[in-house]
Amino acid sequence: MNKIPVAVLAATGSVGQRFVQLLDHHPWFEVVALTGSERGHGKTYGEVCRWLLAEPMPDWAGKMPVLPSEAASLNGARLAFSALPADTARQVEPALAQAGICVCSNASAFRREPDVPLLIPEVNPEHARLVEVQRKRRGWSGWIATNPNCTSTGMTIALKALQDAFGLKRVFAVSMQALSGAGYPGVASLDIADNVVPFIGGEEEKVEWEPRKMLGKLEGEEVHLAEIGISAHTNRVAVTDGHLVCLTVELAQRATPEQAATVLAAFQAPPPVAELPSAARPVIQVREEENRPQPRLDRMTGRGMTTVVGRLRSDPLFDLRLVVLSHNTIRGAAGGSLLNAELMVRAGYLS
Amino acid sequence: MNKIPVAVLAATGSVGQRFVQLLDHHPWFEVVALTGSERGHGKTYGEVCRWLLAEPMPDWAGKMPVLPSEAASLNGARLAFSALPADTARQVEPALAQAGICVCSNASAFRREPDVPLLIPEVNPEHARLVEVQRKRRGWSGWIATNPNCTSTGMTIALKALQDAFGLKRVFAVSMQALSGAGYPGVASLDIADNVVPFIGGEEEKVEWEPRKMLGKLEGEEVHLAEIGISAHTNRVAVTDGHLVCLTVELAQRATPEQAATVLAAFQAPPPVAELPSAARPVIQVREEENRPQPRLDRMTGRGMTTVVGRLRSDPLFDLRLVVLSHNTIRGAAGGSLLNAELMVRAGYLS
Amino acid sequence: MNKIPVAVLAATGSVGQRFVQLLDHHPWFEVVALTGSERGHGKTYGEVCRWLLAEPMPDWAGKMPVLPSEAASLNGARLAFSALPADTARQVEPALAQAGICVCSNASAFRREPDVPLLIPEVNPEHARLVEVQRKRRGWSGWIATNPNCTSTGMTIALKALQDAFGLKRVFAVSMQALSGAGYPGVASLDIADNVVPFIGGEEEKVEWEPRKMLGKLEGEEVHLAEIGISAHTNRVAVTDGHLVCLTVELAQRATPEQAATVLAAFQAPPPVAELPSAARPVIQVREEENRPQPRLDRMTGRGMTTVVGRLRSDPLFDLRLVVLSHNTIRGAAGGSLLNAELMVRAGYLS
Amino acid sequence: MNKIPVAVLAATGSVGQRFVQLLDHHPWFEVVALTGSERGHGKTYGEVCRWLLAEPMPDWAGKMPVLPSEAASLNGARLAFSALPADTARQVEPALAQAGICVCSNASAFRREPDVPLLIPEVNPEHARLVEVQRKRRGWSGWIATNPNCTSTGMTIALKALQDAFGLKRVFAVSMQALSGAGYPGVASLDIADNVVPFIGGEEEKVEWEPRKMLGKLEGEEVHLAEIGISAHTNRVAVTDGHLVCLTVELAQRATPEQAATVLAAFQAPPPVAELPSAARPVIQVREEENRPQPRLDRMTGRGMTTVVGRLRSDPLFDLRLVVLSHNTIRGAAGGSLLNAELMVRAGYLS
Repeated sequence: MNKIPVAVLAATGSVGQRFVQLLDHHPWFEVVALTGSERGHGKTYGEVCRWLLAEPMPDWAGKMPVLPSEAASLNGARLAFSALPADTARQVEPALAQAGICVCSNASAFRREPDVPLLIPEVNPEHARLVEVQRKRRGWSGWIATNPNCTSTGMTIALKALQDAFGLKRVFAVSMQALSGAGYPGVASLDIADNVVPFIGGEEEKVEWEPRKMLGKLEGEEVHLAEIGISAHTNRVAVTDGHLVCLTVELAQRATPEQAATVLAAFQAPPPVAELPSAARPVIQVREEENRPQPRLDRMTGRGMTTVVGRLRSDPLFDLRLVVLSHNTIRGAAGGSLLNAELMVRAGYLS
Repeated sequence: MNKIPVAVLAATGSVGQRFVQLLDHHPWFEVVALTGSERGHGKTYGEVCRWLLAEPMPDWAGKMPVLPSEAASLNGARLAFSALPADTARQVEPALAQAGICVCSNASAFRREPDVPLLIPEVNPEHARLVEVQRKRRGWSGWIATNPNCTSTGMTIALKALQDAFGLKRVFAVSMQALSGAGYPGVASLDIADNVVPFIGGEEEKVEWEPRKMLGKLEGEEVHLAEIGISAHTNRVAVTDGHLVCLTVELAQRATPEQAATVLAAFQAPPPVAELPSAARPVIQVREEENRPQPRLDRMTGRGMTTVVGRLRSDPLFDLRLVVLSHNTIRGAAGGSLLNAELMVRAGYLS
Repeated sequence: MNKIPVAVLAATGSVGQRFVQLLDHHPWFEVVALTGSERGHGKTYGEVCRWLLAEPMPDWAGKMPVLPSEAASLNGARLAFSALPADTARQVEPALAQAGICVCSNASAFRREPDVPLLIPEVNPEHARLVEVQRKRRGWSGWIATNPNCTSTGMTIALKALQDAFGLKRVFAVSMQALSGAGYPGVASLDIADNVVPFIGGEEEKVEWEPRKMLGKLEGEEVHLAEIGISAHTNRVAVTDGHLVCLTVELAQRATPEQAATVLAAFQAPPPVAELPSAARPVIQVREEENRPQPRLDRMTGRGMTTVVGRLRSDPLFDLRLVVLSHNTIRGAAGGSLLNAELMVRAGYLS
Repeated sequence: MNKIPVAVLAATGSVGQRFVQLLDHHPWFEVVALTGSERGHGKTYGEVCRWLLAEPMPDWAGKMPVLPSEAASLNGARLAFSALPADTARQVEPALAQAGICVCSNASAFRREPDVPLLIPEVNPEHARLVEVQRKRRGWSGWIATNPNCTSTGMTIALKALQDAFGLKRVFAVSMQALSGAGYPGVASLDIADNVVPFIGGEEEKVEWEPRKMLGKLEGEEVHLAEIGISAHTNRVAVTDGHLVCLTVELAQRATPEQAATVLAAFQAPPPVAELPSAARPVIQVREEENRPQPRLDRMTGRGMTTVVGRLRSDPLFDLRLVVLSHNTIRGAAGGSLLNAELMVRAGYLS
């Protein structure tokens, strides 16, 4: 099989680097273009990029030129992975989609658009169909599909399993988020050393809304938001990778912690999703220890794609309490976007 | 005025050290005995104690002998500050009280006893009267008074202000707690470096119960627990000092964040409490910035006795959200216990 | 006595904030101007400054306007404390000196100028006289005096005591430097979390040269650099404040670790220096424990002005090994500069 | 080929866990026994072991019983990997060797014995022959071979390349060592948060002596220590894994940094060593960037077995300065010991 030519937009940033790393030796995709800001044009990726991952930069990437984020520069890429900041994404991604390029975007710019799927393949693969609506409405030959915010991702996967089994009414979420979620240079070391910052700009709004779209029903040409009330506190802590979320959940139908654990551990992606190259295996891992999940020990479970859940216990006010961990730059960003792309290919939307 | 002779029990541990440091140059109290475990007996405090505070060990303390925690060894102390572990406290503290010594205890051993006051002077000074019940029932000439768990402390102070103004119904609390709360050696560095531990043994039970006793009403000889539902997640983070708590609160009577901020900032201790030497000045500080309070920047507010509150905002499910910070070894342990002692002296219970 | 009106240049940065904090309630100086970059002009210091210290911003500072760093804007300040970056300092400081303002600068811009004193009052107060040469040569009515790099400072104080007693030949220095030394935002958290960065731009050159000027002899109109060979490795570690330096020293005349400890502990500033308001008390503290000094526990010794020395032991290759700790933003920056100003006032150079 | 049955002694500790993880799917060895302290006997490894690695515990290990460290309990293991503490090793390891078991030990107990090889296969594989002397002298049918201290390891590999090319005279070494080097629970979090501890018990003595044995010549039945003077400062920093060492080196024959870089990058293990399953590939990696190596980014180079070197530059006092990084629990402990075992098997010493 010929590999599909793909581009990574804003490849020099921290999410962009993760895209490059995860695309190394990918069975379906071949990177043909890396883009970056203007001061890198004319130089190679190896010269421009301050590589921040422990895994070494792939040799092929180091030699590629840094290009502008324009359709004409993408060397025939049919798919573009976008790590663009939201404001740039708002301009660039529609232009690419109009030019026939399919965009899997990690940016928040279009997540709330009614005709743009906000996708987690294990949760709402059927929402992928929104790109048909999108193409029709906008007259694009390409499309834009988005993955959720890094904190929304893991909690939505856990909530999906609970929703399917018991129904969901209300959710309190308090996050402790990793430094890599803020990009690079991101959080100043003096702000976080011996400290916690109890605020992340714009984050609580995303965490309170995005799960409702993903857990909602696609009927006809639109998604009906799930009728779940969500309240969030979001915090930054001194952890390199891995977002931890404390959840307290009110269910539609009572369930014991043991029943919830069983349902979470048994949660499966629909068969075509489970066989995608980047699928999480398992989708959810339930830890029995009283003090897990922990970011340093559990974030790489399932190559960083598994959602790790623990501390299942009853709650004096609602029904259940649990703790959810998800790798924010893999599952919650580049890896999630890559899995979306695989789903779209498998579903036939890349033609 | 002659100073009151006092002892510090378990003076070599991390809370014990804080007692020693806060009692240096105290206007009312003079330390006449420091106790520690058996292997320190016959040595000086300076020889035995691995001093962990940035403030230097007072010279007088370094030269004092380490004594057993027995009434006969306390050199005539009339008051004892207890930093004993709960299991030891269960034996030692009653023996001292029986021998006529008044014990201000940081241990959890007797907090739930109906005739033992669980005290925060700014919150429930009237509960001090329980020691009369205690003396009568138990036939003691001394007494035991306790201060709450370090995480309960700050949140109870903030909740008291809200309770007085609007009434309280339900509270969700998620803590991010400092390393010093676990004592020394306490948390292993390998457990917390680049990590969060989403579990602290026994902590959630304390946080869900203690505020209800302190916010309850003393009627006749007993305290009626406040009818407030509390649900907690407690977490350990890589911060040296300062416990941060995210609170989501359902009020009996609706209030805007602005009204709540006004009430919190205006909260005052009753007059005799406000004049005690270790009183918090102010009791509560409300920060306006979107990203405060923060442990490293705000924990020493009011010499570590002030409760710092911020991020007041409305909540989609309940009424209010806020973030509370309190210095766990000062306000939440030794400083709180010292303030209790000052209250008891002022209230005439030391005779 | 009327207080001397002073300005703080670049008052919003991390060293500038330290100047403001240390000048609060200063017995000799009164701040009449705070300067900052252009986008702050027309606003107050309280509005512009992202205050990073645990000590609260003084009220008077919050209300002052942010001004340009020009002589005409300094409200009659006779002395200016400069926290300017080196390139700006190169333009601004001479302009001020020409306009009759005396500049105590923390910037590196003029440290190597032959007619500019590089001063540590306890080490080379007699070098202050260079400002006479400077004024004569340059025709200035004001002057510039500099304090050394934060890493050079503590080690030079320790080396001075050894030089006086035994003579110095060669020094190996390896530093582990705090985050605050890089200013704000400075070091990105992702660069230092779970990490050490074994490089600080331009630092080794300063550490290898500056001590030689300060330990050199002023003869006539110039300083003869001390004939000491210095070799440095400089590293950044995840510590908020306090630079630690491992020193291995070859002496001109052999000495045991005990003799060295005696000499270091006995080291005194010349009498007029010892009585300055910001003088270190003691100048050097020698710790006997095998594992001290440590940044978190020892950096605030002597209100952050004392140099703390420990681990004195013999060396298999040279003569002595020791570890030196110095608070980098107090002793090594704003506090050092302030002490220089006090020396200059006392020595009569402010008229 | 039938796999060789092996045991891991003290398998529950942090180095023991690393042995278990590295032995998972090993092509030559099969684990038949895991030992631990008495309170674990009768339970499984999964029940007893507080697993600290991010890689999951192998299933086979979790089901194995925890056994005593005695020859009769090792289920026929012919080789034992020892992660025993030094004092226990002193008793247990000779008993096993006498009983015919070959011991590859990470303990320091026998490193200084004249007839015990202190081995790094890339450095001194010919020293392996000492086990013949050992067997003869002691009448053992098994033997003991040791790997060096974790800090000695990386620096000795780098020094070997320089010694071969230019000769070595004197070395200054200052380490910044990771938390995992102290085992578990090891360093208390309160000792290292926002801190550096400039002391590690017994470490400097090892770092100053062990490289001299490994870089020495085996003549007849004994090793002549290399005539190199080494002086060390050892420090603990807040890093999970990866020891960094700043080296300043006096060579017998002058060399430029470029010549040294060439020699280091070209350094090869002798052919049989290079083909061992756990061999470092490459042995040494030279980084060109001005700020590398860094523990977080570089410690897993070559699956944690490669020594990473950077910042090669000339020195004002000696000849060369460089920075060396080595993964302390892989290359510097379990991985090094495993590579030693592979060398011994290949050299025919396991029969």
